[in-house]
Amino acid sequence: MTYCLAISVNKGLVLASDSRTNAGVDYVATYSKMSRYIFEDNRSLTLLTSGSLATSQAVINAIDADLDDPDVEFDISKGKHLHEVAQYIGRLSQREQTLHNSAMERSKSSNESSFILGGQITGQPSEIFLIYPQGNFIAASPETPFLQIGENKYGKPILDRMISPNTSLEDAARCAIVSLDSTIRSNISVGPPIELAIHKENVIESPYHSVLGQNSPMYKSVQKQWNEGLKQAFQRLPRFEWEKSR
Amino acid sequence: MTYCLAISVNKGLVLASDSRTNAGVDYVATYSKMSRYIFEDNRSLTLLTSGSLATSQAVINAIDADLDDPDVEFDISKGKHLHEVAQYIGRLSQREQTLHNSAMERSKSSNESSFILGGQITGQPSEIFLIYPQGNFIAASPETPFLQIGENKYGKPILDRMISPNTSLEDAARCAIVSLDSTIRSNISVGPPIELAIHKENVIESPYHSVLGQNSPMYKSVQKQWNEGLKQAFQRLPRFEWEKSR
Repeated sequence: MTYCLAISVNKGLVLASDSRTNAGVDYVATYSKMSRYIFEDNRSLTLLTSGSLATSQAVINAIDADLDDPDVEFDISKGKHLHEVAQYIGRLSQREQTLHNSAMERSKSSNESSFILGGQITGQPSEIFLIYPQGNFIAASPETPFLQIGENKYGKPILDRMISPNTSLEDAARCAIVSLDSTIRSNISVGPPIELAIHKENVIESPYHSVLGQNSPMYKSVQKQWNEGLKQAFQRLPRFEWEKSR
Repeated sequence: MTYCLAISVNKGLVLASDSRTNAGVDYVATYSKMSRYIFEDNRSLTLLTSGSLATSQAVINAIDADLDDPDVEFDISKGKHLHEVAQYIGRLSQREQTLHNSAMERSKSSNESSFILGGQITGQPSEIFLIYPQGNFIAASPETPFLQIGENKYGKPILDRMISPNTSLEDAARCAIVSLDSTIRSNISVGPPIELAIHKENVIESPYHSVLGQNSPMYKSVQKQWNEGLKQAFQRLPRFEWEKSR
């Protein structure tokens, strides 16, 4: 499995992903699920993938091949609006899946992949999209400022409680790390390193990117502080009647 | 859907359940998912149900009918060990499901139910069991001191972080309320009131029981304190490099 999320706040975007893949329990591996495309003065995009690793890799390969092809009609550097790029990725995903449809049906397995696309095109607001395996997609909104793919349930409560459009980029990034760490603790199919990208609104050049391994000081420090903070929060919860009279 | 959980600590047991049921989005209702059976000086049991409401109610009805039948071979008040009672409930559940199997297959729907049984028989340690729809079951262990049925993912991280056999009964109960509240916030198919039972180890008579409605002072106070505590924990998380130089 996988867990990836994207958060859209007034000050920009945060995207984060885990790095564990598994084909059954016998074949557990580490792969980056984050691809970054920076075209200076034009656009800066981050793509997160979940689902079939074969389909995800094929889509990334097709994106790169199209960028290399001077005669291509559309590629990830083209289009005035980000939703055109989302549509393009949905098309690539569908094309790849269709190639193997009948073989997949015979083996009763799935090659579906989901994607989150986030980024900004110069002159447009930054946006995030969740692209379904069927190729259609949805955007986030002020009421629903985050999108998730993969094992999304464990890490949702903290996002529901903490994230609003007014959240700072740094708080959104810390929340993404906590959401991923909670999922990593509770589900063995999601694992470190955590990859993190931060796009500042209207700053196209060089979005922040880092890979937080299990022993990285930032990741360890977030884990430790969060555990201590939760314990303190826990100790401050109200007492039952019979505890008060003690 | 539903979310129920049971926690087994050295000092006893905590069982908790939500109260929302839904058959599609058109028929959302409130039902208790907790049944309590107290036989003084003999045993005190709490049963939680998830899944098909029809199957759950049929099993509860069968338990009551067997208790009323002086000639019955086994009922919930019999058996020296709690696992015999778990086996009995698994049998009732299977019997009820089998009655409707062919109709269920025709309509491509499921009448599966899961159960959590917790309690203590005089002279035996307290125990909790998760009874699968197939009638087989597992117990908790010191390494896995809690069991969940229904929408179990949202509320698992806080249990993973907080619960060990040394946790006090009151802390385990507060953790159960937080786990349920997180699930209620993140999933519309789980809703209040929260029902809570606390069995003190070796105290068979009158286990604590309460129903926390949305406006109950205890529930509102837990929600408020937990939210504030999380915010404080959040503010104490480490800063990124660029924040430090500000």
